[in-house]
Amino acid sequence: MILIIADGKKPNIDIINKYVAQAQFIIATDGAYDYLTDVNIIPNYVIGDMDSITKQIDDNVIIIKDEDQETTDLEKAINFVITLECNDVIVLGATGGRLDHTLYNLHLLKKYQNLLELTYIDNYFTILLPKDRSIKFAGKNGVLISLLSLSNKVVGISTVNLRYPLINEDLENGIRSGCSNEITADFAEISWHEGDLIVMIGND
Amino acid sequence: MILIIADGKKPNIDIINKYVAQAQFIIATDGAYDYLTDVNIIPNYVIGDMDSITKQIDDNVIIIKDEDQETTDLEKAINFVITLECNDVIVLGATGGRLDHTLYNLHLLKKYQNLLELTYIDNYFTILLPKDRSIKFAGKNGVLISLLSLSNKVVGISTVNLRYPLINEDLENGIRSGCSNEITADFAEISWHEGDLIVMIGND
Repeated sequence: MILIIADGKKPNIDIINKYVAQAQFIIATDGAYDYLTDVNIIPNYVIGDMDSITKQIDDNVIIIKDEDQETTDLEKAINFVITLECNDVIVLGATGGRLDHTLYNLHLLKKYQNLLELTYIDNYFTILLPKDRSIKFAGKNGVLISLLSLSNKVVGISTVNLRYPLINEDLENGIRSGCSNEITADFAEISWHEGDLIVMIGND
Repeated sequence: MILIIADGKKPNIDIINKYVAQAQFIIATDGAYDYLTDVNIIPNYVIGDMDSITKQIDDNVIIIKDEDQETTDLEKAINFVITLECNDVIVLGATGGRLDHTLYNLHLLKKYQNLLELTYIDNYFTILLPKDRSIKFAGKNGVLISLLSLSNKVVGISTVNLRYPLINEDLENGIRSGCSNEITADFAEISWHEGDLIVMIGND
């Protein structure tokens, strides 16, 4: 797993440390490098246009300067990961900062959906946009699940092992969402016929 | 203008005070009542299922208890405003908390689009979903503007007085967004042919 630390709101240090310990490589977008220095984490790479770093960059860090104005620092980092041919990427700090950045980063889940497995994690949720209109995952009784439509409408959703089950039902922006459901067993399944469904699985 | 203080991340106290001073009525959703007590603001109404308040409620506050499990506290507050026949509503604290709540609240902009003028304000932005596929607003040179699609695709966007103009162009989730544009004059205009466009106007 490759870990990207982006420049949105950072989750609690326990969550940071958990994923740092599991990461094969750690990539900081340039705005996040200062934060990592403050919590004594040295990433393997720092990527971006390098206009936001105020700290001295450690000699062991590989700097990838990319000044393309058409892509955000997080996109630059994801594009770099694609060149590493690693499929599994977790991003911390993709959400919870400026709302336009958060929404833009949710759109990136769609942009890169067919290129790698991209997962955002914040203080509350693991956030995914499953690509095959179906997801099955481990959990435990009582874990929070929220389902939101990224496209206008997600059609024909059915669930297994959720407190408020959906049976071939639709979610639609402005009409219905699936906030605050719950897992009722040690796994759950969600499948649907059409549309882009953001699945948020509560942290234990 | 009616001001609703909701239970997401509160903006800075200067912003709170600015809109409190302009409000005809102040409504707190129940989770926000404790916060208002801490900053010495007494709302006119508190609305919700009243399961989140730990402070003593002031005798001058009208309590509207509504335990409907199908609507959120913010929806309950908006539904109450509709009964007051006031058209102009500002919500502070609609964004920046749990991501599912933020997205759900953005969907409410669509749900209530034809019933009242609903505006969210956070530390960075005034957030709107204009209903007639067109908006003209005062601003000043350098103010941040971000345009994001709430529906899949917003078609045929044209702008007046933006740094990076759009001329009959589309924005689409996962393909293109309009983050971090800027106003270049004392007003700007945005119009489009089809879709739901979230317009975020930077705070001065």
